[in-house]
Amino acid sequence: MNLHKRLFIPGPTEVFPDVLLQQAKPLIGHRPQEFTDLFVGIVDKLQKFHGSRQWPAVITASGTLFMDITGRSLVQERALCCVNGAFSQRYAATIQNCGKAVDVLDVPWGQAITPEMILERLSSGDYDTLVVCHNETSTGVRNPIYDIGKAVKKEHPDIIYAIDSVSAMGGDKVEPEKIGSDLIFTSTQKCFALPPGLAIGFVSEHALERAADVPHRGRYTDLKGIYDYYQKKQQTPSTPNVSLLYALDYQLDKMLEETQEGRYQRHLSMAQWTRAWANKHFEMFPEKGYESVTVSTIKNTLGKSIADLNKELATRGFMISNGYGKQLKEKTFRIGHMGDWQLANVQEVCWHIEDIWGL
Amino acid sequence: MNLHKRLFIPGPTEVFPDVLLQQAKPLIGHRPQEFTDLFVGIVDKLQKFHGSRQWPAVITASGTLFMDITGRSLVQERALCCVNGAFSQRYAATIQNCGKAVDVLDVPWGQAITPEMILERLSSGDYDTLVVCHNETSTGVRNPIYDIGKAVKKEHPDIIYAIDSVSAMGGDKVEPEKIGSDLIFTSTQKCFALPPGLAIGFVSEHALERAADVPHRGRYTDLKGIYDYYQKKQQTPSTPNVSLLYALDYQLDKMLEETQEGRYQRHLSMAQWTRAWANKHFEMFPEKGYESVTVSTIKNTLGKSIADLNKELATRGFMISNGYGKQLKEKTFRIGHMGDWQLANVQEVCWHIEDIWGL
Repeated sequence: MNLHKRLFIPGPTEVFPDVLLQQAKPLIGHRPQEFTDLFVGIVDKLQKFHGSRQWPAVITASGTLFMDITGRSLVQERALCCVNGAFSQRYAATIQNCGKAVDVLDVPWGQAITPEMILERLSSGDYDTLVVCHNETSTGVRNPIYDIGKAVKKEHPDIIYAIDSVSAMGGDKVEPEKIGSDLIFTSTQKCFALPPGLAIGFVSEHALERAADVPHRGRYTDLKGIYDYYQKKQQTPSTPNVSLLYALDYQLDKMLEETQEGRYQRHLSMAQWTRAWANKHFEMFPEKGYESVTVSTIKNTLGKSIADLNKELATRGFMISNGYGKQLKEKTFRIGHMGDWQLANVQEVCWHIEDIWGL
Repeated sequence: MNLHKRLFIPGPTEVFPDVLLQQAKPLIGHRPQEFTDLFVGIVDKLQKFHGSRQWPAVITASGTLFMDITGRSLVQERALCCVNGAFSQRYAATIQNCGKAVDVLDVPWGQAITPEMILERLSSGDYDTLVVCHNETSTGVRNPIYDIGKAVKKEHPDIIYAIDSVSAMGGDKVEPEKIGSDLIFTSTQKCFALPPGLAIGFVSEHALERAADVPHRGRYTDLKGIYDYYQKKQQTPSTPNVSLLYALDYQLDKMLEETQEGRYQRHLSMAQWTRAWANKHFEMFPEKGYESVTVSTIKNTLGKSIADLNKELATRGFMISNGYGKQLKEKTFRIGHMGDWQLANVQEVCWHIEDIWGL
């Protein structure tokens, strides 16, 4: 086995050994009471951590499944999808692939979506659903989901507000009721600092009412079906990943101890230090004021080879990310500072970059 | 922690400690070459074990996802769904919930589906897809999927033949080309003796051609999209459960060593012994000649309390299953003999039942 590379990529994030070991516990069935106790405990802890009374759906899948769920269970006829990066693009395409109409609010990569832009487009009255990406993993832009929610819910109370928070939730702040979101989701391998394999989404009453009116929701993408099963049996309709639920339950205890505010402040301090470091040697890619607190996307102003940098970092036991996709590869690089990392860990990887590049 | 209950339920099955520990290995990203090596290795091993050249889709989800995939990516207009238990019922309902037309070939629970029944229904020419459950976990009936495939493919070569083999594949024999199946799937927590969390399905060229013609496949349920991504990058389109892939890779090495034939013979010997034991004290529930080799469903002819039996077994470190659903609960009980158990382990649990009930 080679030297383990500590992950400073924007997910999957590093999972600490004590958390990984939770997955090695002997299995239980998913129908007896002991499973119900585990699962209800997880739901309670998720609500406590996020200060929410909304129901958190916990589904065995990648976070992407919630994009299909949006298309199958929430969009009635037409969605307005805000696109300013690769993952919001994927969200829009998925809804379209589910056979629903999609209009795109297109903003250049690196720039943020604002409430004003959205209100202007919504004024046509054509849309039943609004889709926003909280934290664009591809560009490191953080969209102002609280401000957007406030503006939209005031003027368009009937609209469903769905948010991809895959690379933010659990690190950046997510309070569903304060945001006014009807669906906001993540997956375990990002700021929760767990292995991939579970998708977690907070669902409003409004979303459940909407789902009841949307036909052909299927089964695995049927938000209402999953909710009804939970209400009836406090379990999941199909066999869930019990090993990963053990790890989630364990991790949630640590997250509750740190609190959402504490976790946010820790992420913010890592982001602020990394931004200052980046601005000293390079430039930040995102529009000022809209930088992510979980991943810093940095312009490669020195024109160095990012691929070579990562090769050298690998020999030292680290991994960062190249820019996302053809458009940003080698033109930017990304340092993920999410999950359980502390400021000193991020500083360490940046010091190695200074050393390798002679900054 | 209480005494661990060894699982003799029809899934999730017992996972041995060395396998569980694979999940505690440090994580890697899902885009670097080292992930590609892992994933391509798994695909190769799955093909070798099943003696197949079909592409095995490996998706982070419960096996149920493949029911949605059938509805979204394979059924064009109308499917004939063979129903003789709870899981085939679920399959039919899922396809219908995806907005496709479904006719049901209904056979009483406990009885098997035969090629003759299917040919008679298919002769109307109304169907583009045929759906069969290989091994009804609810009733312990094993449908003759090889004979069905031979008959159907001869008379109706255009039809897509989709099979739920969740509680059989990996224990019972599954050779996709010999069966003539276009989709045959399982999930990791059954005969593969792994934790739940991955769905595995062998997909024919014919199925991929069909998928190309079916609109609105979504993303997570888009069989063609997942295949195209694998062809292009030998990876998965969204973040997969890397921890469980480690365990699958490890387990496949052990399965290849045992061989599919060896694994089948071991399951058959456990089934035959359990059947003889059941017939000595009770009666088997399934129609004679169609008994499952992975789970024995036994009529509770003595009218004892199955719930009480399981409580006493729990104190001894075992768990079996009550009958499935309102219809079969307390009227039948089920002993799962699948995965990595040996004959002696199944004998042990049956001896405990004899002792508890004074047989």
